[in-house]
Amino acid sequence: MGLKKNTSELINLINTKIINLDFPETPSLLYQPVKYILGNKGKRLRPILFLHAIQLFSDLKEIHFIPAIGLEIFHNFTLIHDDIMDKADIRRHQPTIHKKWDENVAILSGDAAMILATKQFLSLPEKIFKPVITEFNKMALEICEGQQYDMDFESRQSVSVSEYLEMIRLKTAVFLASALKMGAIAGNATTNQQQQLYEAGINFGLAFQLQDDFLDSFSNLEIFGKKPGGDILEKKKTFLLINAFTKSSEKQKKELSALLDNTQISPDEKITAVKKIYTDLSIDKLTKTAIKDYYTKGFLWLNKINGYQAVKEELISFFQEMQQRIS
Amino acid sequence: MGLKKNTSELINLINTKIINLDFPETPSLLYQPVKYILGNKGKRLRPILFLHAIQLFSDLKEIHFIPAIGLEIFHNFTLIHDDIMDKADIRRHQPTIHKKWDENVAILSGDAAMILATKQFLSLPEKIFKPVITEFNKMALEICEGQQYDMDFESRQSVSVSEYLEMIRLKTAVFLASALKMGAIAGNATTNQQQQLYEAGINFGLAFQLQDDFLDSFSNLEIFGKKPGGDILEKKKTFLLINAFTKSSEKQKKELSALLDNTQISPDEKITAVKKIYTDLSIDKLTKTAIKDYYTKGFLWLNKINGYQAVKEELISFFQEMQQRIS
Repeated sequence: MGLKKNTSELINLINTKIINLDFPETPSLLYQPVKYILGNKGKRLRPILFLHAIQLFSDLKEIHFIPAIGLEIFHNFTLIHDDIMDKADIRRHQPTIHKKWDENVAILSGDAAMILATKQFLSLPEKIFKPVITEFNKMALEICEGQQYDMDFESRQSVSVSEYLEMIRLKTAVFLASALKMGAIAGNATTNQQQQLYEAGINFGLAFQLQDDFLDSFSNLEIFGKKPGGDILEKKKTFLLINAFTKSSEKQKKELSALLDNTQISPDEKITAVKKIYTDLSIDKLTKTAIKDYYTKGFLWLNKINGYQAVKEELISFFQEMQQRIS
Repeated sequence: MGLKKNTSELINLINTKIINLDFPETPSLLYQPVKYILGNKGKRLRPILFLHAIQLFSDLKEIHFIPAIGLEIFHNFTLIHDDIMDKADIRRHQPTIHKKWDENVAILSGDAAMILATKQFLSLPEKIFKPVITEFNKMALEICEGQQYDMDFESRQSVSVSEYLEMIRLKTAVFLASALKMGAIAGNATTNQQQQLYEAGINFGLAFQLQDDFLDSFSNLEIFGKKPGGDILEKKKTFLLINAFTKSSEKQKKELSALLDNTQISPDEKITAVKKIYTDLSIDKLTKTAIKDYYTKGFLWLNKINGYQAVKEELISFFQEMQQRIS
């Protein structure tokens, strides 16, 4: 690949650079939590997509890793604040920041993470800095909108499939799409190429979130890492539940509602019973088909793009692996 | 003043433009709280300083009001999150966002406000955009550091005068200084002029915070707008209390500590007794002198600057009025 890097080389470089991030020592309650959550390795999805998008059109430079890590810091900012709002105690097998420290620490270190994320983009050359930060800013606001819709939906009686898809587009898909688009901008791609990558990212992002919904109900405990069925017990309006309500008869709707509210049966019984309704209504198949369709559309967009063939193949493999994920 | 605007013209323009800010309608729980807090008129200190700094060196343009309002939005972001952290129920005579709505709404609308603040800077021409946003980002992180130190100090046994001054430099002074400096950058001032304005801003900012500390204990209820003595009842480590502990004998230290912890006397009795100690130790005079000294230094820096005389005089009057403030 010459000056190009494959995905595993990128992951290693990203992780090394994150470990070596030079945050101030004090005030330690501001910076320690940011280091803590960044050290808790995630998939590094967004920096990988950003860097691949750059080298799809240009050579990768050392300087490009700085904003790449900015995207990972921004992602972790959203996790810190979302975990407070969702009252989540555990993230990637470790206590969340508001649990390990307290809520004030989580609010303020989250704010600092957001500012530190933007700071990483200052290293970009002036010419591409403004278009990249413009895209970043637009994306950041859309993610907040997605999170607000997600919270709004909790107290809503019902949510339509299209409302749900719009919510996950904002909350999840836009970030993958913008990471790719920002990379394309930084790699001096044409507006058309930028937009093609963005469309690919939206489709892969929607597929990714629907996979999360599917796996939460239908994966195995051993592989999934966390106990499946959490969404069912929380009565979360996922793609599965929304479609189940849409596809069911009046009688089945009442049964499903009663089942979700039933406090007399064990959690495992409830999960088994809801999953039976899902399979009776073919919601599992419907979801699998939707996931496959989004991946197909994503690959169609990706294949259209005129860029370095070796990098394109690397990106295709990356999303193919994502499509196969079982956890 | 020709193409220059005086302070009251600036305030009117700022307020009109804030009222007309075009935020999206939905999700309403994300944008309504931001409109709500912005509508609750503050002093508009930061946009005024930014705009005066621009016209000190260049002509003011319509476009400059957009980032000016970005500074006001950023200020309000800090208020939204600080009010959660400080558990403050009232701000400028109105319920705070986490009280009027809830904490999740305050966290997320605060995040949105921060992103919306940055968005306003995108209107600046490319050449000055990057240096302005670089200064903005540095300032934003320092304000977070200041807020963290402020919270750290609450649980500390003692805080030194210099630690306290460093905290208020970060939490309060840096914002005024940077608003001036960003304006100087946008007005094409020299690096030297930018730095002179920054130094002036730091001194005025420190003076401004010490005035807050002083007025909280020594203003009249009718004028101050809120009941004085709040800091005393909260045992807040203000410039007054820290100096009182520094200047007092061992015996007085014990008396003061016992008094602050005394739950047998009424709040009014406690406030009166602590204020008596302050005057006995001449803490009121010492604070007034410190405030005066910072203003003097600020005016010295300001007077040095080579810029449009009429605007300079307007800025001097602005800070002279600030010096006279009794609320």
